[in-house]
Amino acid sequence: GTGTDNDLYINQAVVFIEDAIQYRSINHRVDSKSLWLYRWYYSRTCQWILSLTITIILALAFIEKPSSLTVTSDVRYRLPAWNPPCGLTESIELLCFLVFVVDVSVKSYLIGWEEFWKNKWLMAYILTLIVSLTDWVVSLSFLCAEDVRIRRILRPFFLLQNSSMMKKTLKSINSTLPEMASVVLLLAVHLSLFTMFAMLLFARTKDGQQDKEWVGYFRNLPESLTSLLVLLTTANNPDVMIPAYSKNRAYSIFFILFTVLGNLFLMNLLTAIIYNQFRGYLLKSVQSSLFRRRLGIRAAFEVLSSLKETPANAQQSYVSVGALLQVLQKVEMDCRCKQAITRSLKMCSCDQLSATQFQKLFEELDKDAIKQHPPSPEYQSNFMQKMQFAFGHAYFGYLGNVVALANIISICVVLVMDADKQPSERDDFFLGAINCFFILYYLLEMLLKILALGLKRYLSYPSNRFDGLLTVILLVLEIATFAVYGFPHPGWRPEFMGLLSLWDMVRLVNMLIVFRFLRIIPNMKFMALVVTTLLDLVKNLRAFAGILVVVFYAFAITGIMLFKGAVVPLGNIRFFYFFLFQTSFYIKIVVVYFKEKCDFMACFGDFQAEVIYCLLYLLFVNLICRWAKIYFVVWWLISSVIWVNLFVALLLENFIHKWDRRCHREPLSDIEYQRTVELMFRDVLEEPTEEELMEKLHQHPHLQLCR
Amino acid sequence: GTGTDNDLYINQAVVFIEDAIQYRSINHRVDSKSLWLYRWYYSRTCQWILSLTITIILALAFIEKPSSLTVTSDVRYRLPAWNPPCGLTESIELLCFLVFVVDVSVKSYLIGWEEFWKNKWLMAYILTLIVSLTDWVVSLSFLCAEDVRIRRILRPFFLLQNSSMMKKTLKSINSTLPEMASVVLLLAVHLSLFTMFAMLLFARTKDGQQDKEWVGYFRNLPESLTSLLVLLTTANNPDVMIPAYSKNRAYSIFFILFTVLGNLFLMNLLTAIIYNQFRGYLLKSVQSSLFRRRLGIRAAFEVLSSLKETPANAQQSYVSVGALLQVLQKVEMDCRCKQAITRSLKMCSCDQLSATQFQKLFEELDKDAIKQHPPSPEYQSNFMQKMQFAFGHAYFGYLGNVVALANIISICVVLVMDADKQPSERDDFFLGAINCFFILYYLLEMLLKILALGLKRYLSYPSNRFDGLLTVILLVLEIATFAVYGFPHPGWRPEFMGLLSLWDMVRLVNMLIVFRFLRIIPNMKFMALVVTTLLDLVKNLRAFAGILVVVFYAFAITGIMLFKGAVVPLGNIRFFYFFLFQTSFYIKIVVVYFKEKCDFMACFGDFQAEVIYCLLYLLFVNLICRWAKIYFVVWWLISSVIWVNLFVALLLENFIHKWDRRCHREPLSDIEYQRTVELMFRDVLEEPTEEELMEKLHQHPHLQLCR
Repeated sequence: GTGTDNDLYINQAVVFIEDAIQYRSINHRVDSKSLWLYRWYYSRTCQWILSLTITIILALAFIEKPSSLTVTSDVRYRLPAWNPPCGLTESIELLCFLVFVVDVSVKSYLIGWEEFWKNKWLMAYILTLIVSLTDWVVSLSFLCAEDVRIRRILRPFFLLQNSSMMKKTLKSINSTLPEMASVVLLLAVHLSLFTMFAMLLFARTKDGQQDKEWVGYFRNLPESLTSLLVLLTTANNPDVMIPAYSKNRAYSIFFILFTVLGNLFLMNLLTAIIYNQFRGYLLKSVQSSLFRRRLGIRAAFEVLSSLKETPANAQQSYVSVGALLQVLQKVEMDCRCKQAITRSLKMCSCDQLSATQFQKLFEELDKDAIKQHPPSPEYQSNFMQKMQFAFGHAYFGYLGNVVALANIISICVVLVMDADKQPSERDDFFLGAINCFFILYYLLEMLLKILALGLKRYLSYPSNRFDGLLTVILLVLEIATFAVYGFPHPGWRPEFMGLLSLWDMVRLVNMLIVFRFLRIIPNMKFMALVVTTLLDLVKNLRAFAGILVVVFYAFAITGIMLFKGAVVPLGNIRFFYFFLFQTSFYIKIVVVYFKEKCDFMACFGDFQAEVIYCLLYLLFVNLICRWAKIYFVVWWLISSVIWVNLFVALLLENFIHKWDRRCHREPLSDIEYQRTVELMFRDVLEEPTEEELMEKLHQHPHLQLCR
Repeated sequence: GTGTDNDLYINQAVVFIEDAIQYRSINHRVDSKSLWLYRWYYSRTCQWILSLTITIILALAFIEKPSSLTVTSDVRYRLPAWNPPCGLTESIELLCFLVFVVDVSVKSYLIGWEEFWKNKWLMAYILTLIVSLTDWVVSLSFLCAEDVRIRRILRPFFLLQNSSMMKKTLKSINSTLPEMASVVLLLAVHLSLFTMFAMLLFARTKDGQQDKEWVGYFRNLPESLTSLLVLLTTANNPDVMIPAYSKNRAYSIFFILFTVLGNLFLMNLLTAIIYNQFRGYLLKSVQSSLFRRRLGIRAAFEVLSSLKETPANAQQSYVSVGALLQVLQKVEMDCRCKQAITRSLKMCSCDQLSATQFQKLFEELDKDAIKQHPPSPEYQSNFMQKMQFAFGHAYFGYLGNVVALANIISICVVLVMDADKQPSERDDFFLGAINCFFILYYLLEMLLKILALGLKRYLSYPSNRFDGLLTVILLVLEIATFAVYGFPHPGWRPEFMGLLSLWDMVRLVNMLIVFRFLRIIPNMKFMALVVTTLLDLVKNLRAFAGILVVVFYAFAITGIMLFKGAVVPLGNIRFFYFFLFQTSFYIKIVVVYFKEKCDFMACFGDFQAEVIYCLLYLLFVNLICRWAKIYFVVWWLISSVIWVNLFVALLLENFIHKWDRRCHREPLSDIEYQRTVELMFRDVLEEPTEEELMEKLHQHPHLQLCR
C-alpha cells in the first residue's frame, strides 16, 4: 500500500543519508528487510565486534607456539615462554572464523548476486575463509603438531578487506608498481654489472697477502652480489672497501662510483617516481569521497521526491519539508549537524525543497564544528577582576613556560652532577626540594588559571587539559613520596620501601616534568605548523600503516615458519625486529653484528652460555644463509625502499599543501587548526555536476527511479 | 668625430651581443678602451688562465705538507710522502695570487667605481687577497714552520667568486636557511628531551650487572647526547639498544619512538622544506638568464640605432642591415648561428630593422642545432643495396645487443666456475677462445655497419662512436695478447711477460666487454629516460657540486689543522673520507670501527705494527674527542643532511618536469634528446616586456641612451 511504500522510501532516504555521512557507496539492496540488515550491519556494535575479532585473530600470533612474549630477550636469563595447550588458540580462531563467515554472507547478500560476481575482494575473502577453515581442520587432526600453518599467513587479509581506505591505497600502490619495477630492474642491472666488474677487479692473486678484498667480500658470485647489495643499504659501507683501499687508493673510485650511482641517483629516483605518482593521490581520494557524499544526498532526494504525498510536478521534483524532518529524526548523525539542519529547515519559509536546496542543507556536514570556548566567569569585586586579568593573560602562560624551562634545566644540572656518583653516594635532597617547589608552583598556576578562566573554559583548551592532568599526577606522586619517605632533608636517602624506591619515584617525577615541557609547542609558530603537519600525516597514513602491518605480519609469520627449525632462541628477536622500520639495520645485524661479535666472543670463550648463544647464531647465519638472503632482500625492498619512499612522498604532498595554504591565507588562529583533509583541499575540490550524479544513480543495481 | 663614434657604437653592439650569448650582465663600462679590455678579459685564453690558476691553487693541498699522496693508505707499508722544500709551493701560490690581483683589478675597473662599492663579492675578494698575502708573508718569514695557515681555508673562495651560477645558488640556499634552521632547532629540542629521558631511564643502578646500557651509552650527558645523535645517523642503530632490550623488551619503545620521530618525520620534513623552497629554483634561474639575453640584444639594438647614418625617425628607431652585418662579422659566436642569422638577414628584403625584427633575428640563439645525420652512401649494385638494407636495419643492432649479452653471460659463467680455483690451476684457454670469437664478431659488426651507413653517418651516432672505440681498443688488446703470448690452446697458461700478465690482459678485455654492454641503454625507453634525467641533473648540479667542493675543501683543511698534532698517519684517510658523501659513514668509522676493531686487535696483539696503528687511532679518538665531535656533527649536518636533501630536491624537480613533458608531448625521438634546461622550460618561460627591458637599460650606470 502507499503507507508501506512511503515507509520504505523514508527508510531508503535515511540509509542513503547515513551512507553520505560515512562516505559509503550506495550500491546495496534497498528493500525493507535489506535496509534493516544494512543498518544493523553498519551499526556501531556490529562494526566494533568485527574490529575486535580482527584484532584478536591478529594478536593470536603473540601467544601461539614459536613466538613468545617474555620480558627479557636474552636467552640466558629468559624463562621459557608460556605455551598455550592445544585447542585453546584454535577454538578462539574458530570463533573468529565464524564471525567472518557471518560478515561475508551479510556483505554478499547486501550487495546482491550480480555485484558479488564482479567483486574480487569478496571472492578472495570467501576463498581465504575456505582455505583457513581447511587448514584449521588439518591442524586439529594433527593435534597442533603440524609444521606448516598456512592460515596464519592469510590472517592479515581480514584486516585488509575490512577497510575501504586500505583497498583504495593498495590500488594506488598497484598502479605505481610498473614504474617502480623499472627502477628496481635498473638497480638490478646496476648491481650485476658492478658485481662483474668487482669480480674482475678483485680477483684472486698468486700472492696470498694481496687479496684480502677477495677473501673478505668477493670470493664468488653470490658473495660479491651480497657485498654490493649490502653496500647499497649502506650497512657495510666503509668496511667493504678498506682492504682494497689500503692496497691502492684508486680502488675507492669503484666504490664511490657504485655508491653515488646506486644510492644517490637510483634510490632517489625511486623517491621521485613514487612522489610523482602520489602527487594527486590525496586530492583524488578526497574528490571521490565528496562524490559519494553528494551521490548519497541526491539519492535520498530522489527517493523522497517519489513519495506519494508530493504533488506530481512534471518539470521538477520536490521534497516536502515534513518528509525530510521525518527522515532527519531517524538518521544517526552528529548532534550539532542535525540541529543546524533542522534549524535552517525551520528558518526557510518554503514548504517544498528543490534538489539544489536539499543539497545545500546538507552542506552543513562538510563544515567543521567551530569550537567556541565557554565564557570566563564574571567577578563583581574589583580585586578579583584584576586577578582575572593578570592570570588570564598570555604572559602568565609564558611565565609558566619559563618556570618549566627552569625546572628542566635544574634537573639537567643535577643529572650532570650525579652522573658519575655511585647510587649509594647520591643525595636526593636537592632534587627532592626543588621538585617540591616547582610542583607547588605548577599547582598554583593551575588553580589561578582555573580561577581566572573558570573550570569549563580552562578545560576547553587542550593544552590546559594536558597541563592540568600532568600537574595532578605529579602532585599525587609527590604526596605519595612524602607519605612514604617523609619530607626531604639533607642526606635524604632512605632505603627501598613499598612499591617503588624513592629513586624510582624521583625519576618518574622528573620524566613527567620533561614530558610536561612539551606544552611550549603551541606557543612556537613553526613548531605548531610542523606538529599539525605531522598529525595530518598520521591521519592520512592510517591506510598505509595498515598495509604495512599486513605486510609485516605476513613476513614475520613466513620468517618464523622458514627459520623455525634452525634456531629456537632467535624467534623473538626476529619478531621484534620486524616491527622496526628500516631493515637495513636488520641486515646489518645479521651480516655484521652476529658474525663479527660472535667470532670475537667465541674466541674469548669465557662464558659458556655466550659461546653457545653465539654458535647458535652462527649456525643460523650459515645454515639457512641462502633462504635468509632472499628473504631479507625482499624484505628490505618492501619495507625500507618502497615503504619509506611512500612515506616521504606523502609527507611532501601534505607539507607542501599546508605550506602553500599558510603563505596564501591569513595566519591560522592559535588553537583552531583545520585538521581534516577535506578542509585542506576545499579550494581545489570540484563539485560533481547534476548529470554525473544522475547517471551514477541510474546505474544503481537495485534502485529503480521513477523517471 | 662621427667615424670614431660609429666605431664605438659598433664595438658596443658587438660586446652587448656577446654578453647576450653568454648570459652575462651588461652593466660594465662602454668606452672604447674598456670595451677592448672587457673583450680581452672574457676572451677564452684569459678565462682559461684564470680557471687554471684556481685549479692549481686548490690542487696545492695534495702536495703540501701534512697531507700526502701515496698509493696505499696502510701506514705499515706506506712510503713517506714527498715533502716539497720550503718555498716551492709558496712561490706557486704567489704566482696565483698575482693572477688574482690582476683579475680583481680588471673586474673592479670594468664595473666602475660606483658599482664597485655595491658589490659585496668584489670587496670580499679583495679582503681575501689581502689576508692571504699577509699570511703568505708571515709563512715565509717563519720559513714555512708556522702552525696555522689561514690562507688555505680561504682558498675555495677563489673558486666560488669566479662562477656566477654558484653565487646565485648560494643566494638560494641562503634564503632557505631560516626554515632549515627551524627544523634543525626542532631536531635539537627532540634530541635534548630524549637525552634527558634516556638519562633518567637508563640511570645507574646498585646492581652492577643490570646497568650495561648506562655503562655503554648513557654514562653522562655528553655521552648520552652522542649516542642518540649517532642513532639519528643510524650508524649505531641496533647496537645502542641491545643491552636495554635484553633487560626488558619494553625499552625498545623508547628507541623506536626516537627513531620514528627523528629519522622518519623530522629528517624527511627537512627534505620537504628544501624541496618546497627549490621547487621554482630552476625555472627562476632560466627566466633570469633569458632576461639577460634579451637585454643584451636590446642594448645592441639601441646603440646601433643611434648610429649617425640612420635617418632620424621620431616615431621609432631603426637599425640598418649593413651595420648589423658589420657587427655580426666582429662578434664571436657559434658558426651555425652566425650563418643562420646572416642568411635570414639577406632573405629579408628590407633595409631597416625594427626592434622586434632585430630581437626575432637573434632568437636563432635559443634554438638547439638540429643534428642531421649525413646520408648513407648509395650503392649501384643490387647485392650491395641488399647488404645495406640488412645491416643498416635496426634488427642488426638488436642482434649485436644479443651477442653482447651472450658474451657477458659467458664471462659470468667462467667467473663462477673459476671462483674457487687457485691462480695456478686456472686455464685461460676457454675464456681466451670465446673472447677471441666475440671480438671478431664485434669487428665484423662494426665493418658491416660502416659499409651500410658510410663512415660519416656511422660516426654521427654517439652509440656507434662508443661501440666502435671500444671495439678498436679490444682488437688492439687482443692482437697484443696474441703477439706476446701466442694463440690460445688448451692449457694456455703462460708466465708473466711484458707489461701485463696474460691474466691481467684477459681481465682488462673482460672489463671492457662489460663496459661495452652499456650500449643497450638507448634501446630501452625507460632506461633512456632515466639516463637523460641523470645527465640533465649532472648539468644542473654543477653549481651545487662546486659549492660542495668549496665546503669540502674548507672542512678538510680545517680538519687537518685541528687534528694535525694528534695523529700523523690519519692525515690521508681523513682527507679521502672527506670526499665521500655520506658522513654518517665517517662517524661510524670513528665511533665503531676504530674503537671496536682496535680494542679487538689490541687484545690479540700479535702484530706489533697493528697495535701501534690502533693505539694511535685510540689516542686520536680519546685525545681530541670533543673537538672531533663538534666538527663531525657540523660536517654531518652540512654534507649528509643538507646537501643530500638539496640533491633529492633537485632530482625531484628535474624528474617531475621531465616526466610531465613525456606524458604531454609525443615520445622523444631516439637520439635527439633536448638536454638544455632552457628547452625543458620553453613552454612556461615568460618573455620580458619592452617596458621592463627599457627600464633596465635606462638604469645602466655607464650607457647614456639618446632618448
